[in-house]
Amino acid sequence: MEVINRYVTIKTYIKGTPKESDFEIKSSTIVLSAEPLSNDVVLKNLYVSIDPYQIHRFKGHTSSDQKTSNSVVTIAPGEVISAYGVAKVVASGNPMYTRDDLVVGTTIWADYGVLKASEYMLRKLHPKDMGFPLSHQIGVFGFSGLTAYAGLFKVGKPKKGEKVFVSAASGSVGHLVGQYAKQFGCYVVGCAGSNEKVALLKEKLGFDDAFNYKDQPNLNSALKKYFPDGIDIYFDNVGAHMLEATLANMNSFGRVVSCGMISEYTDTNKRVEPNMLDIVYKRIMIQGFMTTDYLTIFPDFLSATMNHIRLGSLKTLKDISTGLESIPQAFVGLFHGANVGKKMVKLVDE
Amino acid sequence: MEVINRYVTIKTYIKGTPKESDFEIKSSTIVLSAEPLSNDVVLKNLYVSIDPYQIHRFKGHTSSDQKTSNSVVTIAPGEVISAYGVAKVVASGNPMYTRDDLVVGTTIWADYGVLKASEYMLRKLHPKDMGFPLSHQIGVFGFSGLTAYAGLFKVGKPKKGEKVFVSAASGSVGHLVGQYAKQFGCYVVGCAGSNEKVALLKEKLGFDDAFNYKDQPNLNSALKKYFPDGIDIYFDNVGAHMLEATLANMNSFGRVVSCGMISEYTDTNKRVEPNMLDIVYKRIMIQGFMTTDYLTIFPDFLSATMNHIRLGSLKTLKDISTGLESIPQAFVGLFHGANVGKKMVKLVDE
Repeated sequence: MEVINRYVTIKTYIKGTPKESDFEIKSSTIVLSAEPLSNDVVLKNLYVSIDPYQIHRFKGHTSSDQKTSNSVVTIAPGEVISAYGVAKVVASGNPMYTRDDLVVGTTIWADYGVLKASEYMLRKLHPKDMGFPLSHQIGVFGFSGLTAYAGLFKVGKPKKGEKVFVSAASGSVGHLVGQYAKQFGCYVVGCAGSNEKVALLKEKLGFDDAFNYKDQPNLNSALKKYFPDGIDIYFDNVGAHMLEATLANMNSFGRVVSCGMISEYTDTNKRVEPNMLDIVYKRIMIQGFMTTDYLTIFPDFLSATMNHIRLGSLKTLKDISTGLESIPQAFVGLFHGANVGKKMVKLVDE
Repeated sequence: MEVINRYVTIKTYIKGTPKESDFEIKSSTIVLSAEPLSNDVVLKNLYVSIDPYQIHRFKGHTSSDQKTSNSVVTIAPGEVISAYGVAKVVASGNPMYTRDDLVVGTTIWADYGVLKASEYMLRKLHPKDMGFPLSHQIGVFGFSGLTAYAGLFKVGKPKKGEKVFVSAASGSVGHLVGQYAKQFGCYVVGCAGSNEKVALLKEKLGFDDAFNYKDQPNLNSALKKYFPDGIDIYFDNVGAHMLEATLANMNSFGRVVSCGMISEYTDTNKRVEPNMLDIVYKRIMIQGFMTTDYLTIFPDFLSATMNHIRLGSLKTLKDISTGLESIPQAFVGLFHGANVGKKMVKLVDE
């Protein structure tokens, strides 16, 4: 049986802040044979993840800084865009997967994904995964969760009672970092870009405090007010000015977990200018990290996190759009703070 | 017996690059009694150390960033200036020290120091120290050596074969870092500010390569040329532009040992603007450190370093001025690259 497979792609390489018109929806024909080529898996995508880091893959090779890293695989205009997602197997030439299996892992921004299972990271969902909404798989149980967990515990290495600051705290990673830190026994303050988000952090997620950075004429003074005893760990999702202000308010032996720099993703002139003397005298560590380095702790992370969710001690924020055609808008919105929590697109009504 | 004790002090708090006229020599009278007050030690200073970090102590309280740190004790105009040095005990009320003992540790920029021995860090020199020039005690066997050793091995954590870049490589710390790294089995390139210094690094100290940063129109390209396989460890003594260029040339999991930032000490507008995306994607660690956190490894450091010196596998660069009145010029010269190796002032001809 032949079906039309719609997929999202970029029209040209993207410079600066992405616009919906940078994207288009194209289609191809795929064959849903009962017996696909050996090793191929055909997936019907249910949810796909929408993540800010994808912007680096859409910039082409003009960004020389990224060339030095093998972590960013450039997407050419017209190509399919791989992304994390939850899907149902509709046909499989790989003995590990059978029709109707639910899988989570690398798929594409498309109705269907035809993947070489050996080249992609897929995880079959097991009965233990089934007590939770499927969308949890690409949020709290997926890379967002692992990023928060590994970044906080393996890079930040908190001690009980330490003071933790989280930027983009209502975002896909930030809202989990803050809750993990609270559970662990830290004092946690988050910042976000609207009063609604701030209220969520304080009232729903149990942050000790939170503030709207847009209301603060001076970030340095704001942080002094929220952290009279200084900051021990900064989980940095934004970069630039917030990082500068945080360094000025950090305690000796403070740690900056450099997770993302959304304020710098689309404007290469927006650079942080840290006071390096603070770094020396306060023995501050700034550590960049990539979640893919921590795949070995995935089982521990997942079991701890499922436990938290079952006990109700970890709450998830999800922001779900519907339909493949909403992917460009969902992605562009990330750069304007439109999302609250983990952004994803639901492709199929079940 | 009363003696005149000359000491160096600042006339006013120093703004920007220090000038000789910012300093003056004052004098007081001290009593060299055979029995000083209980616990006091009277030292006749032989060599005093001249270090760039002292500038922070001369800036007063206007530099708000430093206030957050307890590591910098401000010196007021007219006060004596404490500094590392080698001295001879001329009188002691402390049973640990007796007349004619040689000691190394905290003394002052003065002919004599009258110190409460319990409040200062002093180490009595033992026979094992005596096979070496006394001046080694405040260079390679003192804080410069420990800074190089602890910064490289405890913060940088080199692996054999890794590529190490050292800035201010002919300086008091840099010339030792490069040699420790070579001894350990790393590939080492240093940069310095004159062709003479570059020649010293390559010909006398055995660096694999070295370059004069003033001859390089583009630091990024220079580093690409000297490190075709990228930089694993950067021992940073200068900050600002060199750090930016190094981050762009670093390998994944690279480490920056933030030891000093001389280019930023006297110009608060001269800030580094690192590309934080490099830090995230290449999982770079930037770690500020202070040598005082590593006093526990002093015995290991000293025994390893004495061994190297005995074997001739570690060479020292010393830059010695003579006479108390040369201290201001010696200090000011540090900010113009006037010194080659460890700068110190010899106070007494023996």
